[in-house]
Amino acid sequence: MTINYDYENLALRLWFQMHRVRDALMTCEDQVFGEYGLTSEQYSVLMTIKYLQEPVRVTDIAHWLERSTNSISMIIDRMVKPGLLRRVRDRKDRRVVNVFITSKGEKALKPASVAGLEFIREVLSPLSYEDRRTLVNLLQMVKYKAFKYLDPGIDIEEMIRNEAKRHADLFERLTQYISPSIPEAKRQGGKK
Amino acid sequence: MTINYDYENLALRLWFQMHRVRDALMTCEDQVFGEYGLTSEQYSVLMTIKYLQEPVRVTDIAHWLERSTNSISMIIDRMVKPGLLRRVRDRKDRRVVNVFITSKGEKALKPASVAGLEFIREVLSPLSYEDRRTLVNLLQMVKYKAFKYLDPGIDIEEMIRNEAKRHADLFERLTQYISPSIPEAKRQGGKK
Repeated sequence: MTINYDYENLALRLWFQMHRVRDALMTCEDQVFGEYGLTSEQYSVLMTIKYLQEPVRVTDIAHWLERSTNSISMIIDRMVKPGLLRRVRDRKDRRVVNVFITSKGEKALKPASVAGLEFIREVLSPLSYEDRRTLVNLLQMVKYKAFKYLDPGIDIEEMIRNEAKRHADLFERLTQYISPSIPEAKRQGGKK
Repeated sequence: MTINYDYENLALRLWFQMHRVRDALMTCEDQVFGEYGLTSEQYSVLMTIKYLQEPVRVTDIAHWLERSTNSISMIIDRMVKPGLLRRVRDRKDRRVVNVFITSKGEKALKPASVAGLEFIREVLSPLSYEDRRTLVNLLQMVKYKAFKYLDPGIDIEEMIRNEAKRHADLFERLTQYISPSIPEAKRQGGKK
């Protein structure tokens, strides 16, 4: 067996790059969302609750964000303390705990969404439409392989269908959610 | 102004995908390295020290991993406790603290590297050589834009040159470091 070192090096380089890009994005996002008192992770949780519509359970948030319930629980703990979220026991089933966004959380979420979208536009600006499509597809291939590694019995076909639908829904709601900010901004700059 | 929703949606989808791929990889890696008592982050720190060659300062590790000194310090704290790393004050400059891998850390690092490389091969197997090159290049473009966002005065050209050199060095050392394991594995499977 001969090892193709170039091929191997390329794999390692790609692996590094996938991690480093995310690290860099997280640092930027913590800065962007930090202006509104949120970390990048806290923003994702708020946006997910907004999208799923209250009442939302911790497991729903974890499922949507493809994270463990345990790690999402810890993030939520750190959001309940400063009053961004509220935990309320379900009236019908007392074992279930629902999570709600407080008015303080709402106040942070909207401007943070506008700033976040502005940041995404900026950071992706070097990529053409074709580049973006290629990147989404290639990353998806790696992600599905990773999911298959974690659970060999997983139904990838069904996952792909669900994901496409969920994303389309989320983006429509996100755009609707922040769209009133655009005419407002225009009005301020316009004539009286 | 009319918003091109498809274009916008694609940007959001890409942004999501970059985060989700990393989350999925981290979950896999925590599982792979967990077999050797390491988290994915702890493995990166050990491998960086191995690569930079002792004595290594916390700032060197942070610089190499493109992370803040603060976050690397916290990871190191959690590695000193279970005896994977040792902190030693520099003899010449008492203000400087160097980090060393203990024999326990060494014992975990080698088999973890072999398993890690095996995992990377597996998870990237759906991608052709061309796909990998494309993916590295596109991710790099996003990363550089993110660095530019964090520090508009940054010299990207110099960064690109340094990065290419550092990666080539690292991959050569990593392959050398784990290469004795390959003939060993072959010997076990071969005839006596």
